[in-house]
Amino acid sequence: MTATLLLHCPDKPGIIADITNFITENRGNITHLAQFVDHVENVFFMRLEWETNNFLIPDNKISDFFGTMYAQRYNMHFKIYFSNELPRMAIFVSKMSHCLFDLLGRYSAGEWNVNIPLIISNHPDMEHVAKMFNIPYYMFPITKENKAEQQAAMLKLLEEQQIDFIVLARYMQIIGDDMIARYPNNIINIHHSFLPAFVGAKPYQAAFDRGVKIIGATSHYVTAELDAGPIICQDVVRISHKDMPGDLQNKGKDLEKIVLSHAVQKHIEHKVLVYKNKTVVFS
Amino acid sequence: MTATLLLHCPDKPGIIADITNFITENRGNITHLAQFVDHVENVFFMRLEWETNNFLIPDNKISDFFGTMYAQRYNMHFKIYFSNELPRMAIFVSKMSHCLFDLLGRYSAGEWNVNIPLIISNHPDMEHVAKMFNIPYYMFPITKENKAEQQAAMLKLLEEQQIDFIVLARYMQIIGDDMIARYPNNIINIHHSFLPAFVGAKPYQAAFDRGVKIIGATSHYVTAELDAGPIICQDVVRISHKDMPGDLQNKGKDLEKIVLSHAVQKHIEHKVLVYKNKTVVFS
Amino acid sequence: MTATLLLHCPDKPGIIADITNFITENRGNITHLAQFVDHVENVFFMRLEWETNNFLIPDNKISDFFGTMYAQRYNMHFKIYFSNELPRMAIFVSKMSHCLFDLLGRYSAGEWNVNIPLIISNHPDMEHVAKMFNIPYYMFPITKENKAEQQAAMLKLLEEQQIDFIVLARYMQIIGDDMIARYPNNIINIHHSFLPAFVGAKPYQAAFDRGVKIIGATSHYVTAELDAGPIICQDVVRISHKDMPGDLQNKGKDLEKIVLSHAVQKHIEHKVLVYKNKTVVFS
Amino acid sequence: MTATLLLHCPDKPGIIADITNFITENRGNITHLAQFVDHVENVFFMRLEWETNNFLIPDNKISDFFGTMYAQRYNMHFKIYFSNELPRMAIFVSKMSHCLFDLLGRYSAGEWNVNIPLIISNHPDMEHVAKMFNIPYYMFPITKENKAEQQAAMLKLLEEQQIDFIVLARYMQIIGDDMIARYPNNIINIHHSFLPAFVGAKPYQAAFDRGVKIIGATSHYVTAELDAGPIICQDVVRISHKDMPGDLQNKGKDLEKIVLSHAVQKHIEHKVLVYKNKTVVFS
Repeated sequence: MTATLLLHCPDKPGIIADITNFITENRGNITHLAQFVDHVENVFFMRLEWETNNFLIPDNKISDFFGTMYAQRYNMHFKIYFSNELPRMAIFVSKMSHCLFDLLGRYSAGEWNVNIPLIISNHPDMEHVAKMFNIPYYMFPITKENKAEQQAAMLKLLEEQQIDFIVLARYMQIIGDDMIARYPNNIINIHHSFLPAFVGAKPYQAAFDRGVKIIGATSHYVTAELDAGPIICQDVVRISHKDMPGDLQNKGKDLEKIVLSHAVQKHIEHKVLVYKNKTVVFS
Repeated sequence: MTATLLLHCPDKPGIIADITNFITENRGNITHLAQFVDHVENVFFMRLEWETNNFLIPDNKISDFFGTMYAQRYNMHFKIYFSNELPRMAIFVSKMSHCLFDLLGRYSAGEWNVNIPLIISNHPDMEHVAKMFNIPYYMFPITKENKAEQQAAMLKLLEEQQIDFIVLARYMQIIGDDMIARYPNNIINIHHSFLPAFVGAKPYQAAFDRGVKIIGATSHYVTAELDAGPIICQDVVRISHKDMPGDLQNKGKDLEKIVLSHAVQKHIEHKVLVYKNKTVVFS
Repeated sequence: MTATLLLHCPDKPGIIADITNFITENRGNITHLAQFVDHVENVFFMRLEWETNNFLIPDNKISDFFGTMYAQRYNMHFKIYFSNELPRMAIFVSKMSHCLFDLLGRYSAGEWNVNIPLIISNHPDMEHVAKMFNIPYYMFPITKENKAEQQAAMLKLLEEQQIDFIVLARYMQIIGDDMIARYPNNIINIHHSFLPAFVGAKPYQAAFDRGVKIIGATSHYVTAELDAGPIICQDVVRISHKDMPGDLQNKGKDLEKIVLSHAVQKHIEHKVLVYKNKTVVFS
Repeated sequence: MTATLLLHCPDKPGIIADITNFITENRGNITHLAQFVDHVENVFFMRLEWETNNFLIPDNKISDFFGTMYAQRYNMHFKIYFSNELPRMAIFVSKMSHCLFDLLGRYSAGEWNVNIPLIISNHPDMEHVAKMFNIPYYMFPITKENKAEQQAAMLKLLEEQQIDFIVLARYMQIIGDDMIARYPNNIINIHHSFLPAFVGAKPYQAAFDRGVKIIGATSHYVTAELDAGPIICQDVVRISHKDMPGDLQNKGKDLEKIVLSHAVQKHIEHKVLVYKNKTVVFS
């Protein structure tokens, strides 16, 4: 059993010493420590993981104790996660299977410390994949007319199912503001371009038209502004004049699935901190 | 001695056969042949290199013969270059030396089939580098008031010196329309971002502000629209939250010089064809 | 309907002209042509794809005609494939699912022009995946004692099922010489290192012990010498001192599946030519 | 003015707290802190940089105090460097200029906190480059007969000139054991392959013969065993069947110079720790 503490606060001398003392004095064994100081913004970021088996403070009181003793003093934002509490993840898809297979392949191989209780889609196309992996599939077809209503129904389902975070695995609909507000920095999207180049629809066609020599994919948290949220991971692949728009799509698919799965993994491992529309991603 | 033929034309059956027959029947020995068909635009591109030592047609008549017999029939755009005619290249710089050293290091090592008779700058900072390599350095300080006048003087110098193409090695001024019109697809710029992301000034600061995880550099031909000309080469390097704007500049410098030098090399080797604001770059 | 011609022969003037004439004169419409001359070995390589709908020579006579008229004259090795004849591919696995899911994900999405009639394994672990995708799963447990016998049984099954080529998706057994002889350049393996570094067992541990800063994966055709066959694709990923052997395995898994699938795709598209233990891979 | 502390020791709770307390209690302002725990070997690594302007302990006593109070207690290996003491670097070359220009270009642009008082070579070829940059050039031609003698003379010169570390910029001679013993982890070599593949002479030819699809370059500290010392940086570039041995050399040159310069930069910034033939390289 381990606990993971994520925090950021104004940088001050003594923070690391204070926090590591708090853990070790209460018989926690620190297994990972990563910190980073943004000297431009003067902000201190930290991720600390420790074994709680002999920890003197019971799990359900750690947040209270830590908050009272340290978070106030240093003006911290912090969160504590426990390894025995699996986060619950929803996947949204449309018609393409490559990201979905990549996510579920890892999940079914037991690589991720997560539960996936449901898949949501606006189309029936991926239901057979959900069935293969034995995961309930909910269809919410979206039209101009029913959009608000359907998004409300989806949000209700997510709350009933106690979903912690959402992965948009090439879900081609814009997420409503209510859902974004309910899941801040907890909706992960994959955009099929090297953001901020080629925001919006049809980025491969746009890349082809511009004649770029490299294409990319970007996973990011969804915010109210389209394709403008905090970037988690990016990767690229070289193309040439020989690649037609269809080739770009094919080459891009491999990028998309890997970049999305990496972002999901970092999120599950509680290695992503968001500050001012940017991320700190610990390795 | 070799000749290099670059051409593009509407795609039709029989072009390759006709052209290779033309060369071999006149006792040319083909050493490189690269072709590409853009099936979207239905355009055929070709680069052909052959030894002219026993070629039956004298060098100064090849263009005439080829143009009359084939270019008209196939509605071709074509150009023929001879290996004993070194192109004359001008370098424009401002205050930074990394691209300049990379270009001149290759030049002085004899890697490139080119002459560099002059370096032009708006600042005195790089004169000592020009002196190290024994290349005349001309200073044209630019102000708002004298811009048009100085650009005209530069253009005059370039023409006197019979310059074939221009390399902007982090020259931080916008090139005038007259010069662009005089050197179409013959002015190579290096932009310090992964275009089309971060067009214009201060791309590293913009990349830092956006929180991207990868930065890039782009070499392209200069056209009237800023940073929008045909892309020749691009490359990228991974960054992280630890990299401040100064780190991006340092990491980017290595990209810039390599990407610019690669583009210049492709240009010197006559391996770049431009069509509709995009390039075909043969390997 | 298309036909694809793959060939290599000693380089001579006139080959391209002769072959393209043969196709166009018989009313074939060439859709792709790629050629390469190895000037060191003086060998000409070519891949030609054309639409056969109006082709004057019937499919079943093309090989005969082409062989008689051209292959003899130029001393060619050649093969012709037809787009309506799907190659039959067998997958061999052991206990890991990442490559298997990646292959079957693409297959079930209809991305590949191939049939996969069976999966073979020495362990029961992957049977549930085969069932998900509705593909027969044959188990041949291997021990020191039964190895020769089991390999013979496997070979018999492959022949009954008319298998054209085999993909070793992290199958951890050495393939017998009989099978290699029966499937020359038709068994594709994925080795989890950047060959020729770290040949043999436990390459990630070896990479960790050597302290490399980059790890890789290599897909290659299986030959009698272990991990020494013609390389088809390679890719790498950057690591650091923070990565323990387990991290290398996890990062490597993504490389392995992508590199293996790319090699399989190139093979299915008939874009790989083998010559003297090296490959020509057309883009 | 800053001081940089590099250390490693057996991992124990409380080290970070103790050391950061030592600095802050003596009025040092910590500007960079990077640490890493190797959980396999149970070793703690740290790099700490702090401003010494108001530090209560004078520079020349810091090592003594720190050693007595902490290094003994934790059984540390440590070193302290001061930003006003420029390390003295010697460059060894043979006949190729690409790495030399890259090193000297950065040096003359003031990018590096280092002095380069001399260049040593076994050939006269690079003397003109040394003259361009105004750096003394010493020639020690090596033959089988005079090797021991010349290496002794070189070592004498290095000691007279108080050289701290040596950069082998494609110096094609094997370094003698005396010199290696005198400069442990202070001789940086660039090997033109992705080590451990293609150890020894002619790695590009060997890469070509093996038919790899990616080539690399490796910078490492020189140890008694050839090309087997601790790796500092590696990078790679994609090649294809079109690349002949000469193309590999050309593509490799760009890798070599960038990878070597990165390693030199990390060394100058005191960001490399060596432990058991491996490196920890802080970012």
